[in-house]
Amino acid sequence: VVVLVGVRNPLNIGAAARAMANFGFERLRVVSSHEASFREAKSAVGASHVLANAVEHTNIADAIADCALVVGTDAGHGRAPDQPVHLLPAAAQLISQSGGNIALLFGSEKTGLSNEVLSHCDWLLRIPTSEAQPSMNLAQAVAVCLCELIREETPPREDEFQSAAAGDLERITRVLAEALLERGYMTANASAGTEENIRRMLHRLRINNEDGRTLLGIVRHLARKA
Amino acid sequence: VVVLVGVRNPLNIGAAARAMANFGFERLRVVSSHEASFREAKSAVGASHVLANAVEHTNIADAIADCALVVGTDAGHGRAPDQPVHLLPAAAQLISQSGGNIALLFGSEKTGLSNEVLSHCDWLLRIPTSEAQPSMNLAQAVAVCLCELIREETPPREDEFQSAAAGDLERITRVLAEALLERGYMTANASAGTEENIRRMLHRLRINNEDGRTLLGIVRHLARKA
Repeated sequence: VVVLVGVRNPLNIGAAARAMANFGFERLRVVSSHEASFREAKSAVGASHVLANAVEHTNIADAIADCALVVGTDAGHGRAPDQPVHLLPAAAQLISQSGGNIALLFGSEKTGLSNEVLSHCDWLLRIPTSEAQPSMNLAQAVAVCLCELIREETPPREDEFQSAAAGDLERITRVLAEALLERGYMTANASAGTEENIRRMLHRLRINNEDGRTLLGIVRHLARKA
Repeated sequence: VVVLVGVRNPLNIGAAARAMANFGFERLRVVSSHEASFREAKSAVGASHVLANAVEHTNIADAIADCALVVGTDAGHGRAPDQPVHLLPAAAQLISQSGGNIALLFGSEKTGLSNEVLSHCDWLLRIPTSEAQPSMNLAQAVAVCLCELIREETPPREDEFQSAAAGDLERITRVLAEALLERGYMTANASAGTEENIRRMLHRLRINNEDGRTLLGIVRHLARKA
């Protein structure tokens, strides 16, 4: 559950909703002392359902009453919080290990979460921002946190690379070498060495099957006598 | 280097700059066909230095000419790209293993990166968004990517591969495309698409600095009129 506390600008609420929709989150709660007119925020591209189903609360205690874990976000303004602080990657792991409803709290644009609100939190999540400029745009912070939460620890996948057959590379090499010799790129004496260099280079480039055919076509075309 | 291509709303450029400042990134390039008036964008909270130092380009080739790795971001709109796609966590690792200047491209609010721009990319980065709502707010996408890039996990460095700069690949592309058009490999109508295919292929091959120079020499030689 994303809980926005004291956010002033309805466009920011809409933008946060958009980030939620991007990462598959649906439950938004808005804590505000006055009626917030965010339901029609244009910034909620593709997230009108999130805004339509958002629940409004007038105080933080009600907003998190059903949550087993309450995590506050901390802009890292330098104040020393009384609670444990976890940097984003570690925080996301802790969250993923928790059961029950989980509330992730974001504060107002100017001041973040108040000490009173922070006192409702089990611990704080900090995005590892630059010390020189720690304060993030609200919806950007929401996006960064939610993206981390859905992260799947998958090792980098080697793309499925189908290398061109050596025979194809050899055909390219021969056509190239012949054409270059003919056009004075190299002398006949040096041609064996140059041909080897070309062959080595072609093997060094990661040429896939299809690219191998394309290259052969191109090279043949250029090699034709005018 | 964060490269924003065809972004319309100056507030989005400012918000992207804010995210850059949050994560300690400073080099912003803006590619736009008309003068973009983003320098004073109010959304760049704490990031006026990023906007002040941003460099404007009128075309993508210039903007990435000095970059050894060019990564496009892909909204996952469902089109099947011709380039390898890496999901964010794996993509960040690949980026951290690369040397030289690295360009991370973000497209316009409505349409993302065009096929022409994508053809300049070595591969694409995809943020693992929900299928139901894949399209992210621009600056939120920037924030999510950059936060992942500064994540502290330095995996073992791969072989020291010094990729040819995009500017060199572009030179090869142009010489090839011109020569092929001249020799009837493609019709003038199809030439833009073929040029994109060639560019994409060159970015797909792992061409190092030296091989880039050799290839350019070969191609120039073959392109000469008899």
